[in-house]
Amino acid sequence: MDPRDRTTRGGEALEVVAGNGLLDRRAFLRGGAAFAAVVSGYTLTKSAAAEPLADDPWSRMPGAVSPPYEQRSRFEEKVARTLSNPQGETRTSHARTPHHLLNGTFTPNGLHFTIVHSGTPDIDPDRHRLVIHGLVKRPLVFTLDTLARYPMLSRMTFVECGGNSAPMFSKEPIQASVQALHGLVSCAEWTGVPLSTLLEETGVDPKAKWLIAEGADSLALSRSFPLSKALDDAMIALYQNGERLMPGNGYPMRLLLPGWEGNMNVKFLRRLKLVEEPGMSYYETRTYSQILPSGKAYRFYFLQEVKSFITHPSPGLALKGPGYYEISGIAYSGNGRISKVVVSADGGRSWAEAALQTPVLSKAFTRFRMPWRWDGGPAVLQSRAWDEAGNVQPTRAQFVAVRGETQKVPPVLGFPNQHYNSITSWAVDSKGEVRHVYA
Amino acid sequence: MDPRDRTTRGGEALEVVAGNGLLDRRAFLRGGAAFAAVVSGYTLTKSAAAEPLADDPWSRMPGAVSPPYEQRSRFEEKVARTLSNPQGETRTSHARTPHHLLNGTFTPNGLHFTIVHSGTPDIDPDRHRLVIHGLVKRPLVFTLDTLARYPMLSRMTFVECGGNSAPMFSKEPIQASVQALHGLVSCAEWTGVPLSTLLEETGVDPKAKWLIAEGADSLALSRSFPLSKALDDAMIALYQNGERLMPGNGYPMRLLLPGWEGNMNVKFLRRLKLVEEPGMSYYETRTYSQILPSGKAYRFYFLQEVKSFITHPSPGLALKGPGYYEISGIAYSGNGRISKVVVSADGGRSWAEAALQTPVLSKAFTRFRMPWRWDGGPAVLQSRAWDEAGNVQPTRAQFVAVRGETQKVPPVLGFPNQHYNSITSWAVDSKGEVRHVYA
Repeated sequence: MDPRDRTTRGGEALEVVAGNGLLDRRAFLRGGAAFAAVVSGYTLTKSAAAEPLADDPWSRMPGAVSPPYEQRSRFEEKVARTLSNPQGETRTSHARTPHHLLNGTFTPNGLHFTIVHSGTPDIDPDRHRLVIHGLVKRPLVFTLDTLARYPMLSRMTFVECGGNSAPMFSKEPIQASVQALHGLVSCAEWTGVPLSTLLEETGVDPKAKWLIAEGADSLALSRSFPLSKALDDAMIALYQNGERLMPGNGYPMRLLLPGWEGNMNVKFLRRLKLVEEPGMSYYETRTYSQILPSGKAYRFYFLQEVKSFITHPSPGLALKGPGYYEISGIAYSGNGRISKVVVSADGGRSWAEAALQTPVLSKAFTRFRMPWRWDGGPAVLQSRAWDEAGNVQPTRAQFVAVRGETQKVPPVLGFPNQHYNSITSWAVDSKGEVRHVYA
Repeated sequence: MDPRDRTTRGGEALEVVAGNGLLDRRAFLRGGAAFAAVVSGYTLTKSAAAEPLADDPWSRMPGAVSPPYEQRSRFEEKVARTLSNPQGETRTSHARTPHHLLNGTFTPNGLHFTIVHSGTPDIDPDRHRLVIHGLVKRPLVFTLDTLARYPMLSRMTFVECGGNSAPMFSKEPIQASVQALHGLVSCAEWTGVPLSTLLEETGVDPKAKWLIAEGADSLALSRSFPLSKALDDAMIALYQNGERLMPGNGYPMRLLLPGWEGNMNVKFLRRLKLVEEPGMSYYETRTYSQILPSGKAYRFYFLQEVKSFITHPSPGLALKGPGYYEISGIAYSGNGRISKVVVSADGGRSWAEAALQTPVLSKAFTRFRMPWRWDGGPAVLQSRAWDEAGNVQPTRAQFVAVRGETQKVPPVLGFPNQHYNSITSWAVDSKGEVRHVYA
């Protein structure tokens, strides 16, 4: 360790742990004095020369009345999902989460990403029914009232579209924000009834191997999933972050298949049919079918694999002069818990381990954080995650070698650019501007 | 165990673990077949005689356009906070959380309780400042932009008004919902900068023992708290459940003192002054000063002690005929983690241990769940919680013996009915109606 790579204050050594100013993340974990030592010398602040503060207008008059349902400040209206189909034309509508304007480990309901293929239905929950039928011993109809009597579970789970990060298949790095690149993933606490419980009620015919889930939207969107997942951690979700599901997330109920491709988590769920073979529906054979460079396709690609990206800083969040910053971002894996995230500030030449926000939960967002002293020169920021099953996020070169770059195929063949999970790189220039690069 | 107190299906014994139909909560913990065995025999559902389902109108036409910020279904408008001051008169305004209409382990931002004493100010975040001054080595001014560069932390924490549950001081049980009785507590994930970090920046004069926190509301509401708490787990909270704080929760920043009386978590925080002695402000010496039956008062009562209450069923959520139900509710303690919750269905004559939703986090809501087979006869439902520090929620008799029942004192002396934490009892009659009783 070059002795110049140390900052000392109050007897605490502040160790540079990787190139271009990455600082020891253990400062986060030890807490207290060691934690503060990382920060000392931030010198971001102005001395408070004058007391008292001048009173702003809002400190000089009574404020607003509390509403029955609290609304955001008018100054936060810029924190919004970006819409791919704001006029509601007859096609798919995407609404992407602004990760660079959020913090913490999950997504508030107003900003959870949504994709709907024929708009969001206006469902009367008292009339909505869920039927479980097909290869069962007795087909049953469930209402919201009857489901409310069953034992429930809550779990934090991310949901990610198979097409999230698809712009990164491009041969050249597309200049876009983290919202545009990675905004089709969000995380919430879902509460509902385990599907295994309901299948105990219906009984399962031994011939049943798959289920076909169907929504009450006008497309009757349907997807197949294996019985083993239904008996593992599948849930009929009724609540999202404490309250009833948002309309775009499937009100009044959705299928939740933790860690699996978003489209399979069928929204507005009205029917589950137990069958011997998958249904080979439109969305599983065309739209979300992964086509390989050879022209062949994986038959199914359900798992959302280990991934991470830096949200702060990121394009649109320029650095304001040299000095200390926190690098932070999100990591997750459909395989389980995140076990490690490393961060680089020099485009992958050197790496250091980031602090993980606890609790680290299975198939949920994990926020990682790393202190950084930016010297004002060029930097390339990257993150790379591992999950508890031992999987590591690939480099872009590794990923492209197997999966190829952007493919254009006739729409009838589907959308080949799915399930992208390699490293994202943000270049910082000497002005502090951040842009997307491949490194 | 009376052999009649067993239900057997598929070789699984379903054990009655306490009087009046409480069932073994281990079924929740073992998962899979044992879990399902609890449920079998629910027989709540109708056979699905006809396929396909009739298509409702929303399944026959394209749905709505996705908005930038997702809004709740119009069918959920009844899920609302109750307002004590809906016209915004010149007095305190309470907005209470509808716990009986929510589920999971925390409170969505729209429904987090709020109390404001002079309305909610409309603060421009770019103009808001936080000053730390007094007994420091160098007083400093922080903007939102400078705070964004410091290392952050996220933590799930409940916030509870000292006056929550105050109606239960009444000599006779007040007929009210769980929202009216216990709606002044909520739980969120808060993300922000540890106060200890900022105090490392300012330095602390050895004479400093207390801090006075002041808000930017027109009252300049102020509260004192000891330096030891500031250096422990106090936070300057900037995000609530992933997005910026809601206006009623202190936008753009609030003090967070995990586990301590809500009013001390000063909202719209603009100034922290380090001092030798507490400020003895209006809200700490009058409104939230606990007066005892003797006429004396605790000088300070900061801690929100161990508490639990059942949310499902509860008044307003009538049972619809005998059979299986889930009893569930919320437990929390300002001392740390919940270690155990027991439930009774016979007014405290017998108890059984409830399942706790994991992860069980310190100073956060813990959802407990217990399967119950209601025989259609009278029942009195209760819950009782322990925390990891060994504290147990008192019975009402134990509580009243020390703290008394409702006291009426001249308003100038304050509001004596604070920090109520004893057991709540819900009586179920043979029609399934639920009402508040003392038992």
